[in-house]
Amino acid sequence: MKRIAVLTTGGDAPGMNPAIRAVVRYGIVKKLEVMGVFRGWWGLINEELKVLNHRSVSGIISQGGTILKTGRCPEFQTEAGQERAFNTLKKFAIDGLIVIGGNGSFAGAHKFGNKYNVPCIGIAASIDNDINGIDYTIGADTAINTALNAIDNIRDTATSMERIFVVEVMGRDCGFIALAVGLAGGCEDVFIPEKPFDLESSCHDIVHGNMIGKVSWIIVVAEGAGHAEDIARKITEITSLETRAVTLGHIQRGGRPTAFSRDLALNLGKAAVDCLLKGEKDKAVGLSSGKIAVVDFETAIKKKELKVEGLYSLIKTLT
Amino acid sequence: MKRIAVLTTGGDAPGMNPAIRAVVRYGIVKKLEVMGVFRGWWGLINEELKVLNHRSVSGIISQGGTILKTGRCPEFQTEAGQERAFNTLKKFAIDGLIVIGGNGSFAGAHKFGNKYNVPCIGIAASIDNDINGIDYTIGADTAINTALNAIDNIRDTATSMERIFVVEVMGRDCGFIALAVGLAGGCEDVFIPEKPFDLESSCHDIVHGNMIGKVSWIIVVAEGAGHAEDIARKITEITSLETRAVTLGHIQRGGRPTAFSRDLALNLGKAAVDCLLKGEKDKAVGLSSGKIAVVDFETAIKKKELKVEGLYSLIKTLT
Amino acid sequence: MKRIAVLTTGGDAPGMNPAIRAVVRYGIVKKLEVMGVFRGWWGLINEELKVLNHRSVSGIISQGGTILKTGRCPEFQTEAGQERAFNTLKKFAIDGLIVIGGNGSFAGAHKFGNKYNVPCIGIAASIDNDINGIDYTIGADTAINTALNAIDNIRDTATSMERIFVVEVMGRDCGFIALAVGLAGGCEDVFIPEKPFDLESSCHDIVHGNMIGKVSWIIVVAEGAGHAEDIARKITEITSLETRAVTLGHIQRGGRPTAFSRDLALNLGKAAVDCLLKGEKDKAVGLSSGKIAVVDFETAIKKKELKVEGLYSLIKTLT
Amino acid sequence: MKRIAVLTTGGDAPGMNPAIRAVVRYGIVKKLEVMGVFRGWWGLINEELKVLNHRSVSGIISQGGTILKTGRCPEFQTEAGQERAFNTLKKFAIDGLIVIGGNGSFAGAHKFGNKYNVPCIGIAASIDNDINGIDYTIGADTAINTALNAIDNIRDTATSMERIFVVEVMGRDCGFIALAVGLAGGCEDVFIPEKPFDLESSCHDIVHGNMIGKVSWIIVVAEGAGHAEDIARKITEITSLETRAVTLGHIQRGGRPTAFSRDLALNLGKAAVDCLLKGEKDKAVGLSSGKIAVVDFETAIKKKELKVEGLYSLIKTLT
Repeated sequence: MKRIAVLTTGGDAPGMNPAIRAVVRYGIVKKLEVMGVFRGWWGLINEELKVLNHRSVSGIISQGGTILKTGRCPEFQTEAGQERAFNTLKKFAIDGLIVIGGNGSFAGAHKFGNKYNVPCIGIAASIDNDINGIDYTIGADTAINTALNAIDNIRDTATSMERIFVVEVMGRDCGFIALAVGLAGGCEDVFIPEKPFDLESSCHDIVHGNMIGKVSWIIVVAEGAGHAEDIARKITEITSLETRAVTLGHIQRGGRPTAFSRDLALNLGKAAVDCLLKGEKDKAVGLSSGKIAVVDFETAIKKKELKVEGLYSLIKTLT
Repeated sequence: MKRIAVLTTGGDAPGMNPAIRAVVRYGIVKKLEVMGVFRGWWGLINEELKVLNHRSVSGIISQGGTILKTGRCPEFQTEAGQERAFNTLKKFAIDGLIVIGGNGSFAGAHKFGNKYNVPCIGIAASIDNDINGIDYTIGADTAINTALNAIDNIRDTATSMERIFVVEVMGRDCGFIALAVGLAGGCEDVFIPEKPFDLESSCHDIVHGNMIGKVSWIIVVAEGAGHAEDIARKITEITSLETRAVTLGHIQRGGRPTAFSRDLALNLGKAAVDCLLKGEKDKAVGLSSGKIAVVDFETAIKKKELKVEGLYSLIKTLT
Repeated sequence: MKRIAVLTTGGDAPGMNPAIRAVVRYGIVKKLEVMGVFRGWWGLINEELKVLNHRSVSGIISQGGTILKTGRCPEFQTEAGQERAFNTLKKFAIDGLIVIGGNGSFAGAHKFGNKYNVPCIGIAASIDNDINGIDYTIGADTAINTALNAIDNIRDTATSMERIFVVEVMGRDCGFIALAVGLAGGCEDVFIPEKPFDLESSCHDIVHGNMIGKVSWIIVVAEGAGHAEDIARKITEITSLETRAVTLGHIQRGGRPTAFSRDLALNLGKAAVDCLLKGEKDKAVGLSSGKIAVVDFETAIKKKELKVEGLYSLIKTLT
Repeated sequence: MKRIAVLTTGGDAPGMNPAIRAVVRYGIVKKLEVMGVFRGWWGLINEELKVLNHRSVSGIISQGGTILKTGRCPEFQTEAGQERAFNTLKKFAIDGLIVIGGNGSFAGAHKFGNKYNVPCIGIAASIDNDINGIDYTIGADTAINTALNAIDNIRDTATSMERIFVVEVMGRDCGFIALAVGLAGGCEDVFIPEKPFDLESSCHDIVHGNMIGKVSWIIVVAEGAGHAEDIARKITEITSLETRAVTLGHIQRGGRPTAFSRDLALNLGKAAVDCLLKGEKDKAVGLSSGKIAVVDFETAIKKKELKVEGLYSLIKTLT
């Protein structure tokens, strides 16, 4: 192994930059040449890549987003696109590929790596934290703290104006952020994709609470479980109480990575290079049970079954 | 003047708590008894008020929202409601009233104070910064910084994914926040109520920029100028480029007040008490030309004419 | 078990308040009466305690410090002091005690609990993260992020003015914060109590780097490994280069707890109550391998042997 | 005027980067060529400068420090140094110079500009806010908020552990930051260079307060008025109460600029270019009475007489 490439794909996550930094600098120490591919798979298909040196990654450790850019690439779903991507790897004599992204990215790397026999190692980076076999992905901790700051702000108004707020957070398939934020924010209820919720019964609680003097609520909803606007409207219909909806949206995606996201990213960057050097392939690295873990792509891309009962019942118990 | 009352009305703004702190503690030093009225005019109508002492306002200087709570009160629009509010003032021998809020609150205090001959002094607090004759209200600086943090986050994704974002900020009648944030965030365009905008022409700029390599945009829109979702959709229709919409909403309302919002609030709290002690009434205090200013309610409640050309053209020049 | 008490002792850590919230509210749900003891052991000796209800802990989830206050208590080291503390427990019919604090606090609880046969459960809260058998204590993540923010700020000046900075962070016996921050901050070196350091050799690196164009450095030092002022002065003596020293000090102790610190605190609060209900005693709860763990006090109060080589060499590799 | 140069000197201040951005981009729009000089006067003496284009200043609006670097330059104090600096200006056909910095920088530009007849315009940037004739410099608002965050953190511990803290903030000749932070932080006392303080009398207040139940204090001291360590030790000597000292130091210098610091910087960058275009020289731009003001260097470099009585007595009244 003499030359490797690194790319970021899918939605950006805070900590991708420190991960790139670790891949480049650790790779160089290990006598590898490291090329950065721009715009994810697109850059591989279109030969947009360049050698990165020690200086290329200076000062990026504290920056959100990704200096390599990212994006979705439908062309990579096609045979022709994959062929061109592989030709780029051959042309530039790239012996291994590090893919920083989420489970969609891993699914692509899994297929591509096996088909063309390219050693691919994934680094788990996704604010949704929805990768199977992995407890924490790069970016999740930052996104949770960003959402929590927003909810702390909203709490000021909820308390001062005695209002019911429905706050939508990231999480298409996964209630991880919603649960973490709902617990840390002292929120009154959390609606997640993993657990059917009964709006009638929640409204009953609100009306009952209202009668005994509880006048402000924050209900967190993961985007995969419904839209804040819809839920707020329905609560008003059922309870006749005023509600407000807030969709946090893209503010959760960017921002300076937290210490946790950075330290994880730096450790995973090193781990991914080590995997390639050991001849491993078709695997992803992430945090599992408090340690760096290596997981088969095949496992990682399965649907994550988040255990939600414990956290959910803690949230309901403590409000 | 022996006993005064203080209340917060309208939307909450970060810095209302330090203002309450200053009214209470400075009032006490000036040998006044200070009563806090809860839930704005509602508390005056329903006799929900109590004497506040030095300790009542301990530890609130750094908190968003308002410990006195706030809200809109339709009942105060009626003759009967005002009558009851006045009776409460009489019953509790309250000689003067300090109203912390925005121009809606001042309009109410103006009418009420003149009708019942109650000395009312307003403290300008509004995240929209839309009070005529006043350059800065309590809360505006905090709201601007909260919105700016959000936009810095969004910039990470806009750059990494090369996307066009439309971000909606507070400002129903006033583009102040949008201009301040648009400038500080290095945003590419700003749509505000004070200035008609030409979406076709903006889209032309985007398409042109896109051709010469500019791939990310953040367009700030004040809520009074349109909705992020609508504008984003129209841009996509016209340019065929992908867009994302983010509505910052209520996160701009709460949060720890900045130093500027706190120092302003504390100075205005003192100034309002001084006004009452000097026998002034029907006036509001705020910051004007860098100094504490006293403005007639009649002036304050007029529509503010924000001079936007200078700032707007600076924004367009620097992007 | 009908009535339990909770206290916070030792240095305050961000997350103690959410831990108190969980103990109180979960305890109530489990049909316990929960008393809050003020000022740590001092309050037990001097009968300063009161019943806490659901409302007593409203709004504290986002606040640093501890509403129960804390402090060191030399009197509790004496036989007489312990006797009085025990009498208070008897007098108020308290069946179990939850002690939120660090290893000093646990050592006290261990002795006291065994001597008087009082079920004591510790909740690991310490910004130093120095409790044996436990990977993460309440407050460590917050303290690390606070220190990291400070270091990001200092980086701006170090780069702009091309200076060498020595930054002292918390950690009397333990380099945990220093390593976490040094890695996440992209710092050039880290001096910790667990590892002898060779200032001459570090200075050699600096002089060498300086010759090849590296002009700014941040060296993190754990307080247990030396003082920033001293180290900075010595570096200047050896290298003749200008240095600056910064001691972060108490700013690392307070502040809004992060999501991680809050969620951990809430889970540990529940876990501690569960321990008492199950009849456990003489144990502490904390996070170990990503899960809530219960550790004997005897283990917890032993000196923690932090494995530093991996992290340290990663830091040196990546700079 | 065809070509101008811009440099940053003295201590860095958050907002210097947006100021550079505005000088460059506004200059280009005005058909000027703009050169950036590195490391302040040093770069002028040593011909370290280059043309900056629109892209050179991309993405710096949110970054602390200065991309042009800064530093003190003793060589520029000498005749020979100034001669070389002037030769560089001649060699590169630079018609005007914009100096971003504090009053030391302005003193240098004043002498140099007059001696060699070079149009020099200063942009007031200094976290100390100590420039005469100017109410707000670039960076002051950011530094104040950074110090305030630190003090909010310290308040958590001061309250929880019932301690007396002495916190040293920036301000060698000027108590501006100390007063702004002391007021916004609800601090109990503030020691500044502009006002002699009586430690005995402060200690008397502390002892008296202590007797009636006030158990925590934060005293802010501007570095020009004394050192936190010394003052804390003396308070302990006089009162026998435990104290803690914290010196905030360089963390106040860096960090993301606030909206206020950015918007001011962008406006001043434009104003400085406009000054040069209008043929003005030997002047500085800053904020005065809420508006952009142009002040003679001769005025700007005089000692600023801060009016402290009003703010100081407000602080003492409100605690």
